[in-house]
Amino acid sequence: MRDTIYSYHQLYAFALNVFLKMGCSNEDASLATSVLLSADLRGIDSHGIARLVGYVRLWEAGRINATPNIKIVHETPSTAVIDGDRGLGLIVAPRAMEIAMEKAKQVGTGWVSVKNSNHFGIAGYHAMMALEQEMIGIAMTNASALVAPTYAAEKLLGTNPIAVAIPAGEAAPFVADFATTTAANGKLEIAQRNNTTIPLGWAQDAAGNPTQDANILKNGGALLPLGSEKEQGSHKGYALGSIVDIFSAVLSGASFGPWAPPFPAYVPMPENMPGEGLGHFIGAMRIDAFRPAADFKSNMDLWLNRFRSAKPIQGQEKVYVAGDIERTMEATRMKEGIPLVNDVVKDLETLATKFNLSI
Amino acid sequence: MRDTIYSYHQLYAFALNVFLKMGCSNEDASLATSVLLSADLRGIDSHGIARLVGYVRLWEAGRINATPNIKIVHETPSTAVIDGDRGLGLIVAPRAMEIAMEKAKQVGTGWVSVKNSNHFGIAGYHAMMALEQEMIGIAMTNASALVAPTYAAEKLLGTNPIAVAIPAGEAAPFVADFATTTAANGKLEIAQRNNTTIPLGWAQDAAGNPTQDANILKNGGALLPLGSEKEQGSHKGYALGSIVDIFSAVLSGASFGPWAPPFPAYVPMPENMPGEGLGHFIGAMRIDAFRPAADFKSNMDLWLNRFRSAKPIQGQEKVYVAGDIERTMEATRMKEGIPLVNDVVKDLETLATKFNLSI
Repeated sequence: MRDTIYSYHQLYAFALNVFLKMGCSNEDASLATSVLLSADLRGIDSHGIARLVGYVRLWEAGRINATPNIKIVHETPSTAVIDGDRGLGLIVAPRAMEIAMEKAKQVGTGWVSVKNSNHFGIAGYHAMMALEQEMIGIAMTNASALVAPTYAAEKLLGTNPIAVAIPAGEAAPFVADFATTTAANGKLEIAQRNNTTIPLGWAQDAAGNPTQDANILKNGGALLPLGSEKEQGSHKGYALGSIVDIFSAVLSGASFGPWAPPFPAYVPMPENMPGEGLGHFIGAMRIDAFRPAADFKSNMDLWLNRFRSAKPIQGQEKVYVAGDIERTMEATRMKEGIPLVNDVVKDLETLATKFNLSI
Repeated sequence: MRDTIYSYHQLYAFALNVFLKMGCSNEDASLATSVLLSADLRGIDSHGIARLVGYVRLWEAGRINATPNIKIVHETPSTAVIDGDRGLGLIVAPRAMEIAMEKAKQVGTGWVSVKNSNHFGIAGYHAMMALEQEMIGIAMTNASALVAPTYAAEKLLGTNPIAVAIPAGEAAPFVADFATTTAANGKLEIAQRNNTTIPLGWAQDAAGNPTQDANILKNGGALLPLGSEKEQGSHKGYALGSIVDIFSAVLSGASFGPWAPPFPAYVPMPENMPGEGLGHFIGAMRIDAFRPAADFKSNMDLWLNRFRSAKPIQGQEKVYVAGDIERTMEATRMKEGIPLVNDVVKDLETLATKFNLSI
């Protein structure tokens, strides 16, 4: 089955209308659409329009509030906790970044921990908001438990991504955005679709043994933290995932660890949840709160150019800096369109029927 | 050759006297000794008293200033850049953490980027300083280039560690402290001493091929970022190491990437250094700048207890939280002493002769 290609604007118009049908305001629907589709543009297909039907199901299940009253519940000059009021993370997280950047303008940096939110799309979108303000942007989120800590036979952490965006002068910026696991769950889903195995190191079975079965998560298996096994440093990936969970959810009062709420609406909510909803952690640091911006940018350009011109190993054309591949993909897909697999097309057609929309 | 066991107090008295002979003030010598030996206590032998002779050589080469005038060169309410004046990182970094915590008291968080410093021992020491103030502590540092980015046949990054310490209530705190490589350089040194090979995934040879040769760094090889290879997520470890380099050195005006100054005093300084000395990045976040401290601690205890009581995989006794193994080691070694390998004992004897000290 060949992929179907849609233009960015086709998908934008469709997703916008779906969010409007859910009852989002014009402004929120437009923001949610931009955040969602930034994933498709950047080639992170698992987090883009493929998830639209999932957001709709959460809304139908009453787990997403389309008209949230997002409010600051506690703050200091450089920090805040905000309550997302069960809103779409796609709009709660950008609001958190706006608050973080406003605080950074006042006192140099701003740090916002968010509770009672939902999935926020790609972390990179929120981090990159800081770039145009000459700030470093940081975004992370916890997620429902799919990952086993080192030595554990239980899933206790989400794929808990971290994004860091760093501005530069003439050179294209540094934009890291990665799950704290060896492989993202989306890569297992691709293997399931193609009926292939996965490399050793990505997952373990229910007893904690290495496996190449792409369907293992449905049978008690777990994703592995970045590093895969102790000898290869998996305790470091486990620590990173833990830090994301704690900053996003323990610091805010969201639900954490094995109690983080699930994305699929058919999965029951965990019992005895210790907090409210999903959590995010968002930060902004003004570069001129450390050095004159021109000095920083000039050194950052030197850094970026040095790494981009590094000598590649045999068989590779070049050395990339974090975000380079996604930036190229974004330019290509904006011009040539976004390919969607058949399952996603079917989901969109179902949504079109449900909401009396055309795609 | 069996290890020789020294008591903590024996080694403390010796290192203190060495720092005093270098010309450090009483206060600085005492602080430097505590930081240095915290590595030995916690089982991170590569960063402890084994490095004392290296610090002395840097001082003899004029690369370490024993009486630095550490000063703030730029600041906002939540940020500062400090110039370490070529001081021992062992005393510059705690000073940076003091400033970060003072800012956190005022405005919720404090973030200090440091230039013109030297190696700071274990990152965990500095991060843990925040615990007693009911703050989250963060510490990272760049270091001389031993690590090849994903796809690169050049060493451009240091092992660039990250430490994050998070306080709790009744439960022992979370203390992550790890190099952003698959394995620390100290592990290769152990393999060299024992004349054994290293696991695949730790290093590559000069052409970028996988290797098990523990001596490969002397022959143009490189350590690999956490993840080891692209398919296993090495671009994530590479991104993490990059973030540490940029926060520590580009943000402060220290020397970065392949231009970071070397630890061995016999290695010439890089040409065309773009900044001054090594860089660190130190942060402190007051937990009550986000939530009432009691609420945070109670949730953090729940988090820690849940992870520590997770079901282990077969063959493992229990699941650890970051810092647990080091905490146990610290208690053991404080009581039973610190084992030193013969090479380190010889180095200490050389220092004893040089400074007319006994050990």
